[in-house]
Amino acid sequence: MSTTPEHVTVIGLGNLGRALAETFLRHGHPTTVWNRDANKADALVAAGAKAAATAEEAIAAGDLVIVALLDSTVARRVLAGAAGAVAGRALVNVTSGGPEDARELAAWADEHGARYLHGAVYAVPQTIGTAGSSISYSGEETVHRRWQPLLDLLGRGTFLGRDAGLASGYDVAILAGMYGMIGGFLHATAMAAAAGVRATELTPMLLSWLTDSFPALSTFAEEIDSGGFSGGESSLAMNQAGLATIIRASRELGVPVGTLAPVKDLIDRQIDDGHGAASLSRAVESFRSAA
Amino acid sequence: MSTTPEHVTVIGLGNLGRALAETFLRHGHPTTVWNRDANKADALVAAGAKAAATAEEAIAAGDLVIVALLDSTVARRVLAGAAGAVAGRALVNVTSGGPEDARELAAWADEHGARYLHGAVYAVPQTIGTAGSSISYSGEETVHRRWQPLLDLLGRGTFLGRDAGLASGYDVAILAGMYGMIGGFLHATAMAAAAGVRATELTPMLLSWLTDSFPALSTFAEEIDSGGFSGGESSLAMNQAGLATIIRASRELGVPVGTLAPVKDLIDRQIDDGHGAASLSRAVESFRSAA
Ligand SMILES: NC(=O)c1ccc[n+]([C@@H]2O[C@H](COP(=O)([O-])OP(=O)(O)OC[C@H]3O[C@@H](n4cnc5c(N)ncnc54)[C@H](OP(=O)(O)O)[C@@H]3O)[C@@H](O)[C@H]2O)c1
Ligand SMILES: NC(=O)c1ccc[n+]([C@@H]2O[C@H](COP(=O)([O-])OP(=O)(O)OC[C@H]3O[C@@H](n4cnc5c(N)ncnc54)[C@H](OP(=O)(O)O)[C@@H]3O)[C@@H](O)[C@H]2O)c1
Repeated sequence: MSTTPEHVTVIGLGNLGRALAETFLRHGHPTTVWNRDANKADALVAAGAKAAATAEEAIAAGDLVIVALLDSTVARRVLAGAAGAVAGRALVNVTSGGPEDARELAAWADEHGARYLHGAVYAVPQTIGTAGSSISYSGEETVHRRWQPLLDLLGRGTFLGRDAGLASGYDVAILAGMYGMIGGFLHATAMAAAAGVRATELTPMLLSWLTDSFPALSTFAEEIDSGGFSGGESSLAMNQAGLATIIRASRELGVPVGTLAPVKDLIDRQIDDGHGAASLSRAVESFRSAA
Repeated sequence: MSTTPEHVTVIGLGNLGRALAETFLRHGHPTTVWNRDANKADALVAAGAKAAATAEEAIAAGDLVIVALLDSTVARRVLAGAAGAVAGRALVNVTSGGPEDARELAAWADEHGARYLHGAVYAVPQTIGTAGSSISYSGEETVHRRWQPLLDLLGRGTFLGRDAGLASGYDVAILAGMYGMIGGFLHATAMAAAAGVRATELTPMLLSWLTDSFPALSTFAEEIDSGGFSGGESSLAMNQAGLATIIRASRELGVPVGTLAPVKDLIDRQIDDGHGAASLSRAVESFRSAA
C-alpha cells in the first residue's frame, strides 16, 4: 500500500515511539522526531528522520503529530512546553492513561487550536506496522478520517467514538482483564509446580479450557448489561463451593491465595446478600457495593 | 458408537451424577443409582435405572462405579459406609477435590481391594455425553484401559498418569487460572460500565486480546520451567508501570482494585528483589517467597 508523502512528527522515542517513526520512514513519509534523550534519535536520523532540538520545533514541522511518552503526566508536561506550536495540528496521543487523562488533554488541545485523537495500541513494538497490531481511536473523528491512510500503516485501526476518553476506557478495562488472566496463569503454574506438573504441560490444557470458557463470558456480559442475573448454568453458590475447594487445595499445596481470595470475596458478598441462586455474573455488583 | 452392555453404578445424583447416569442409560447399560435424597432417582428409574436402598447395595450391583458427590469429605464418608462392597470394583471418582484427597481415597480403595481412578470433569451437566465434554483421569491405568469404551461415552478422556492426585492437581490449577480470568473479566466489565461502555461491547475486544496474549503465556511457561527469566519482551518493570496506570484509572472510575492489587504485589515483590529487567513470568516466584 503506498500513501502520499505527508509530514509526520513523532514525540517520544521510547520503544513504541521508535517503532512508530520507523514505520512512517519505511513508507516514505518525511518524519521529524524529538526525544528528551537525543541519542535515541540517532538510528532514526540515519534512516532519514529529522531530529528537532525541541518538542515545539518538532511539532511545528509535522501536520500529523504522534505522541508516545511514558505516561499522561509526561505527555501533559511535554505538550504544555510546546503549546505555541500545536494550533492547526492533528495530535494523536498513544500514551497510555485513564479516560480522564485523555479527556483533559483533548480539552487542552481544543483550547490551543489543535484537534485531538487518542489511540490505544494493542501491539508490542516488534509488531507495529504488521497484521499483529491493532489500534483503537476515539476523539476528533475528522482527524481519524483525514489521517487514516497513515494511521493504518501502524496497525488495524478502529474508531470507537467522539469521547476522547473512550479508547482509554476500553483500554484500561481490557488490560485489567488481561492482568486478571495473567494473575490466574501465574497462580495456576505455581499450583502445578507444587503438584509436580510442569508449566509447559499445564499451559496448553489451561489455554484450551480458557477458550472453552469464552462463551460463558459472553453470556455473562449479556446478563450484566440487562441486569438479569437469575438462573443460568453457573450459579454463585456452585462457584463459591468450587472456589473454596481450589483455595483449600492451593493452601494444601503451600501456594498462597492472595490473588484468588479476592475473587471469592466478590462471590461471597452477593451470596451474603441472598443471591446464591443467581448467575456468577452478578459478582460484578460487588464492585459497586464496595465502591 | 455401540458398547457391550455393562453393569454400571452411579453414586450421587446431583446435577453431574444425573447427567452421567442418563448417558449410560441412553447407551443401553444397566445402571444402578443411589442418592441420599432418594427422590432424585425417580426420573432415572422411569428411564430404566435401578434405584438401590443403600450406597453399599448400589456398589455391589455395578462393575464400574462412578462417584459424583458434593466434595471429598462427602465422598470419603459415603464410601466408608459402603466399604463392605468395594472389593473387586473399579471406582471412578469424579468428585472435585485437591490432589491429596484423591491420593487418600486411592490408598483407602487399595486397602479395601478396589481399583481407583480419579476423574476431573471439564464439562457442565448439559454437555456430558457430547463433544463439548472432556475428562482427565489419573490413577489405576488398568481401570482406564478396561473401562475406556464406557468412560468415553461421557466425554473425551485423557489418561494423565498413575499418580491418583495428578488429575486433581491439573484440575485445581486450571480452575485457579480460570477464576483469575473470571476475576479479570468482572473487573473489566465494572470499569467499562463506569466509563460508559457496555459489557457486550467490551467483551468481544477483551476476548480477542486475551487470545492474542496466549502465545505470551506459552513463552512464560517455558521461562518458568527453565527458570530462565532474563530478557524477554515484557519486563516486570514495564508491567509494573502499566498495572499502576490501570489501578489508578480504576480508582478514578470508582472501581475497587481488590482483585488487581494482589497481582501487582506479585510483580512489586520481584522488583523489590532487584529483578525489574526480568520477564513478567518471574512473578511466579513471588508465590514461593510468600509461602
Ligand atoms: N511498548 C509497548 O509495547 C506499548 C504498547 C502499548 C502502549 N504503550 C504505551 O506507549 C507509551 C510509551 O511506551 P514505550 O514502550 O515507548 O515506553 P518507554 O520505552 O519507557 O519510553 C518512554 C518515553 O517517555 C520519555 N520520557 C519519560 N520521562 C520523560 C520526561 N520526564 N520528560 C520527557 N520525556 C520523558 C522517554 O524519554 P527518554 O528516552 O529521554 O527517557 C521515552 O521517550 C507508554 O504510555 C506505554 O504504556 C506501549
Ligand atoms: N456440575 C458440574 O458442572 C460439574 C463439573 C465438574 C465437576 N463437578 C463436580 O462434581 C461433583 C458433583 O457436582 P454436582 O454439580 O452434581 O453437585 P450437586 O448438584 O450439588 O450434587 C451434590 C451431590 O452430593 C450429595 N450430597 C451432598 N451432601 C451429602 C451428604 N452429606 N451425604 C450424602 N450425599 C451428599 C447430594 O445429595 P442430595 O441430593 O441428597 O443433597 C448430591 O447427590 C462436585 O464435586 C463438583 O465440583 C461438577
